[in-house]
Amino acid sequence: MDREQLLYEGKAKKIFRTDDPEVVRVKYKDDATAFNGEKKGSISGKGELNNRISAFIFEYLGKQGIPHHFVRFLSPKEQLVKHVTILPVEVVVRNRAAGSIVKRLGLQEGQSFPRPVVEFYYKNDDLGDPLINEDHVAFLDLASQEQIRGMRQMALKVNRLLTALMIEKGVDLIDFKLEFGVDQEGKLLLADEISPDTCRFWDHQTGQKLDKDRFRRDLGEVEHAYQEIWNRLGGEKHV
Amino acid sequence: MDREQLLYEGKAKKIFRTDDPEVVRVKYKDDATAFNGEKKGSISGKGELNNRISAFIFEYLGKQGIPHHFVRFLSPKEQLVKHVTILPVEVVVRNRAAGSIVKRLGLQEGQSFPRPVVEFYYKNDDLGDPLINEDHVAFLDLASQEQIRGMRQMALKVNRLLTALMIEKGVDLIDFKLEFGVDQEGKLLLADEISPDTCRFWDHQTGQKLDKDRFRRDLGEVEHAYQEIWNRLGGEKHV
Repeated sequence: MDREQLLYEGKAKKIFRTDDPEVVRVKYKDDATAFNGEKKGSISGKGELNNRISAFIFEYLGKQGIPHHFVRFLSPKEQLVKHVTILPVEVVVRNRAAGSIVKRLGLQEGQSFPRPVVEFYYKNDDLGDPLINEDHVAFLDLASQEQIRGMRQMALKVNRLLTALMIEKGVDLIDFKLEFGVDQEGKLLLADEISPDTCRFWDHQTGQKLDKDRFRRDLGEVEHAYQEIWNRLGGEKHV
Repeated sequence: MDREQLLYEGKAKKIFRTDDPEVVRVKYKDDATAFNGEKKGSISGKGELNNRISAFIFEYLGKQGIPHHFVRFLSPKEQLVKHVTILPVEVVVRNRAAGSIVKRLGLQEGQSFPRPVVEFYYKNDDLGDPLINEDHVAFLDLASQEQIRGMRQMALKVNRLLTALMIEKGVDLIDFKLEFGVDQEGKLLLADEISPDTCRFWDHQTGQKLDKDRFRRDLGEVEHAYQEIWNRLGGEKHV
């Protein structure tokens, strides 16, 4: 049955049709990739943990007024979300330097930015997801001017809300990547997932990395990091 | 004497002090480099031609209201310019796709953009002059918000003026790179050079490249291209 309903398979998730054309089922996988697919592996339990973490964070953001695609938790690895068209723009917000920006701009890992830095990337595996600016977004027709403004505003609001949520749990939000979708009424919604796959989380006390960098950089205790984030968030079971 | 007065030596120019602290002497070299210095060579006559072409274009832009550093033509390879502090931001304006953007964004060389595309690059040889956005300019403290706005505005105005000048000469302005400086009163001035080293010029009829791409891509007739641009501009001798 799954095969007939499969709409799309990504690196970390599969998307299936449901009986409701406005809703799709997302199934989180344990598969992990990094460096634009060059590094491949599996993180035991990641699918379930990211499904739970992302559901928790979307519900939290929704209560704080962020319009999003999340509908409801379905099973340990599955959730229902609104059927949206994903805009091919990845929006990154950075509070401190980590990842690609360190080498690109000659920074120190961990250095703080005076204000959050927003970046747009062209979501295109063949091109390696290059950094782009708003003029590129426009001529590539990736999003309208209004959508660009909306994504930037929402991304900065998500940053404030998620920073506040995580610091209460003793976790620093270093940076994160968001994707946005447009629903059938043309409304811009926060979409995709928010999890240790898409955020950098560092323990506030020790600086320990609690995110996918443990996989990218072979730091060990990868599963533990995902589990730790879920524990910090309260570890509520949804089903 | 030149040695004592040398303030700075770049890839294509030397800058010397003069008796006037507000004015420096620029000496254009025949040296040519490409791909961040990986490719090196010499283009016979380039120093003189770029000195003449750049002087001509700055005078033209000045008459049209662009504030700039150019003071006066001095000798075949030399000109006097105001002593400014160069902002470490390269501003690129693109009317059609050529150069790095083609591969980076998967475009066709020569495809037109519906509106000119403005890009900022961090002028930093060690980092390979990476593409940056306005948030990066801000936290790297490369320029103020007002200077960013001024550079963008001036770059778009230069694009309109230079496109109009060149099309009269049967040349399409494909793209170009500008640098800006700040004078001792803090005023933002168009600086550096504007020449076939810093612009892509294509013959309007034949599409023939009349710029440094002939050197970058070993297309031959490199000297001829620079001479042709100077001929098209009227070939006036300044001294």
